[in-house]
Amino acid sequence: MSKTDPGRFFEDFTLGQVIRHATPRTVTAADAALYTGLYGSRFAVQSSDAFARAVGYPQSPLDDWLVFHVVFGKTVPDISLNAVANLGYADGRFLKPVHPGATLAAVSEVIGLKESSNRRTGVVYVRSTGFDEAGEAVLTYCRWVLVNKRDPAAPAAADLVPDLPKAVGPAALGAACPPIDAAAYDAALAGSPYRWGDYAPGERIDHADGMTVEEAEHQIATRLYQNTARVHFDQHAAERGRFGRRLIYGGHVISLARALSFNGLANAFHVAAVNGGRHVAPLFAGDTVYAWSEILDRAEIPGRRDVGALRVRTVAAKNQPCGAFPDRAGDGYDPAVILDLDTWMLMPR
Amino acid sequence: MSKTDPGRFFEDFTLGQVIRHATPRTVTAADAALYTGLYGSRFAVQSSDAFARAVGYPQSPLDDWLVFHVVFGKTVPDISLNAVANLGYADGRFLKPVHPGATLAAVSEVIGLKESSNRRTGVVYVRSTGFDEAGEAVLTYCRWVLVNKRDPAAPAAADLVPDLPKAVGPAALGAACPPIDAAAYDAALAGSPYRWGDYAPGERIDHADGMTVEEAEHQIATRLYQNTARVHFDQHAAERGRFGRRLIYGGHVISLARALSFNGLANAFHVAAVNGGRHVAPLFAGDTVYAWSEILDRAEIPGRRDVGALRVRTVAAKNQPCGAFPDRAGDGYDPAVILDLDTWMLMPR
Amino acid sequence: MSKTDPGRFFEDFTLGQVIRHATPRTVTAADAALYTGLYGSRFAVQSSDAFARAVGYPQSPLDDWLVFHVVFGKTVPDISLNAVANLGYADGRFLKPVHPGATLAAVSEVIGLKESSNRRTGVVYVRSTGFDEAGEAVLTYCRWVLVNKRDPAAPAAADLVPDLPKAVGPAALGAACPPIDAAAYDAALAGSPYRWGDYAPGERIDHADGMTVEEAEHQIATRLYQNTARVHFDQHAAERGRFGRRLIYGGHVISLARALSFNGLANAFHVAAVNGGRHVAPLFAGDTVYAWSEILDRAEIPGRRDVGALRVRTVAAKNQPCGAFPDRAGDGYDPAVILDLDTWMLMPR
Repeated sequence: MSKTDPGRFFEDFTLGQVIRHATPRTVTAADAALYTGLYGSRFAVQSSDAFARAVGYPQSPLDDWLVFHVVFGKTVPDISLNAVANLGYADGRFLKPVHPGATLAAVSEVIGLKESSNRRTGVVYVRSTGFDEAGEAVLTYCRWVLVNKRDPAAPAAADLVPDLPKAVGPAALGAACPPIDAAAYDAALAGSPYRWGDYAPGERIDHADGMTVEEAEHQIATRLYQNTARVHFDQHAAERGRFGRRLIYGGHVISLARALSFNGLANAFHVAAVNGGRHVAPLFAGDTVYAWSEILDRAEIPGRRDVGALRVRTVAAKNQPCGAFPDRAGDGYDPAVILDLDTWMLMPR
Repeated sequence: MSKTDPGRFFEDFTLGQVIRHATPRTVTAADAALYTGLYGSRFAVQSSDAFARAVGYPQSPLDDWLVFHVVFGKTVPDISLNAVANLGYADGRFLKPVHPGATLAAVSEVIGLKESSNRRTGVVYVRSTGFDEAGEAVLTYCRWVLVNKRDPAAPAAADLVPDLPKAVGPAALGAACPPIDAAAYDAALAGSPYRWGDYAPGERIDHADGMTVEEAEHQIATRLYQNTARVHFDQHAAERGRFGRRLIYGGHVISLARALSFNGLANAFHVAAVNGGRHVAPLFAGDTVYAWSEILDRAEIPGRRDVGALRVRTVAAKNQPCGAFPDRAGDGYDPAVILDLDTWMLMPR
Repeated sequence: MSKTDPGRFFEDFTLGQVIRHATPRTVTAADAALYTGLYGSRFAVQSSDAFARAVGYPQSPLDDWLVFHVVFGKTVPDISLNAVANLGYADGRFLKPVHPGATLAAVSEVIGLKESSNRRTGVVYVRSTGFDEAGEAVLTYCRWVLVNKRDPAAPAAADLVPDLPKAVGPAALGAACPPIDAAAYDAALAGSPYRWGDYAPGERIDHADGMTVEEAEHQIATRLYQNTARVHFDQHAAERGRFGRRLIYGGHVISLARALSFNGLANAFHVAAVNGGRHVAPLFAGDTVYAWSEILDRAEIPGRRDVGALRVRTVAAKNQPCGAFPDRAGDGYDPAVILDLDTWMLMPR
């Protein structure tokens, strides 16, 4: 019997199945530095131990999306090695600050299955949870992914599409954010005078800057996350495929958009929840990423006066600056749009 | 009002203005490792904790140019986001050794302003100083940069061109170098038998090796320094610009030349001062960098018998090996030259 | 006299010569993270401090090949700067686990010399040994390399071709592996249920995945190892050379093949010895690397019940998936093959 893992196909998943993923990973200050090198992130809490300590962290926490990508990466060999597309995210919540030195592992539960009408693929819904070395959950999220069937004729489990929340409620935010000394939060060092109360629903922000992506960059990033999806790495196979190119990991786009969003959202120091997200179109090396954001909502977090939550929709586009806010268009999207991401972010009040 | 920062234009600067820059940055052994990966530096003091301890450091200090680039990066969003060109450096002095774990922040003072005769741009002179988390200065330098005006018709401040020293004096060197046990400095491990006394003014050294630069490399480096200048990252915009290409951060060239200079200057373990520097021509990805150096002066440092100072002029060229020492030519330079840098370096005596 | 080091030519080596190499290097968790980013390695012992501790290490050791590359890199300026080709390896043994924070230095002894019949080159055989900051050997190996003569007419030393073992004996394995608690070795976290006893001589494993290599990646890796061989970095010179391209460091191919081998050999957590290795053909940027392995032998290690040794031959190919096991062909190799590597690996029993 072959010892090579071909990955699961749609018919290999069963409802309620719990999968402990391989390759726990100790994430260090080195991953944080590489993350800075890959995206140029400038949020002061994650950049400076001194700043983090001044506002209430024991030291700089790891970037929220770095934690996400490492947890996500663990799930790939078991969930999405034979995926056609990563369709969406819901109910993502950061549950505990993660600091350098933490060892992250991941577990997924199959919470939904729906075979496609052509019977050649099916959608797998999973809830994935990342744990630290103490066994405490640091992140949980649902995603659904279109997975090939090994054999179109294989019988499929009864369909079950889970009922997922459209958004995380404000009471569920802030678990991964310690009490913040908002008075000690230095606006000059943070790079912006605008706090939670300065943003209003409906406000749109063009993040202005653009970032061109190279093959070496997204490959280094995606390997750093130990994400093994073949489409990101194998040009020889890609040349025979649909795009002729390596696809860039969608999480790379998210982190680029997040880094670009510093220009306009510099004090959104913590991503507390992911309400939803969609990779609208693929990104390829040589493309330049721009982004803009819209404030969808502003919420108090029950019991907290130090920080408030902004619900922010961030749209990334390729090869088109976002001064004109490229957006949904007709039944779809402006052709430049590549990402439509809905998160809750925390800001000092 | 837009929350996006467009950067300052020439008419936004005023003489004596003091700007506290955003994004303090904790620099760790990870940045040092990435720096090694980006440039291949081999100076033993920075490469080996054991070597550093043997000669008198508590551990390997961070590379001097890494410290410079991080401090420089902080200044970019406030000083040079709308710069046309980085014109020069003067009176740069390293003031304190910086070790992994230090958090660096930066402050700049506007020390000069001179509108261009066409009134569309102007030269801004700043003194920038980097501080560690204890508030102690680790580096100070002057630079001047050509900045666009937002509105050519805007009135400009009265011209003031500061009087900057042509070179740092020997008495100002060595503040960032602890007492060195020159007898414990192992020539075989350091890679060269030549010490301070073995170099003579007028001596020229071809550093022999060449290094080709890739887009991913300079982008990762420049983001690592949190330098946000758009010209380094946005190919979509660059295609509509003067060069059609992304420009490589001038500091990347400096670090490449410094790493190449190991071959001939292996014991120049510390850059103590930057007397001046000029980015003669732009570097683009795909170009190969070579370098040569000329010993301009040799000086004792008052009160020190452990180390001596060499004033070294390092010239970098692209796509032309430096065996023939490409140099100034007529009113300008040999077309291969991209950098002309004048520093004081310390060597064991 | 020039202070630039031109590197040794064949006639500069003498039998029995001992060379202490320059540039000791403190290797940290940052190098481990970069290594993960460059190759995507997923072996749990090296990835997770928690996993490593559970099975008996004090923390994650550095990847064996990272240790090899750093030691190898030190030897390049003295041994192979003027090399035409790296011909082979033998009797490589890992002697002590290396953890982040260790400072590595290297010493080589010339153990053989053989001038080529055309008198323009000669083969230099060296035994290189890496030491940590305590002066304890962590790795030793022999390699032989074809080196140019400075002057074809120069007299050469009498030929001596050393007698090197075809393979390391099982009794010499395991020195760098602490006692392992095989019961605590978690198969789900490690990514495979297959242990030492599940593999049989003659078994072939296609490692399935492919990895395309970019110039920036191999350059960053090779500089990280402070390997200064010009052929890897200088495109300007390469354009005038045999291939017209930069050559990728052979060790980069080894590390890629090792990372790919996770898919099929996930529990081969430690490379204990290198019996031999040959870089069959060069790799260039843009090529995609695949690999397959064959189990050559299975051996108990005298005195140990916790781990067993597998002798594994790993073959890497470019631009050709390895489902058909491309191999030796006639007097040579299938044209896709680039690496033929023979190692002993340890697995839990």
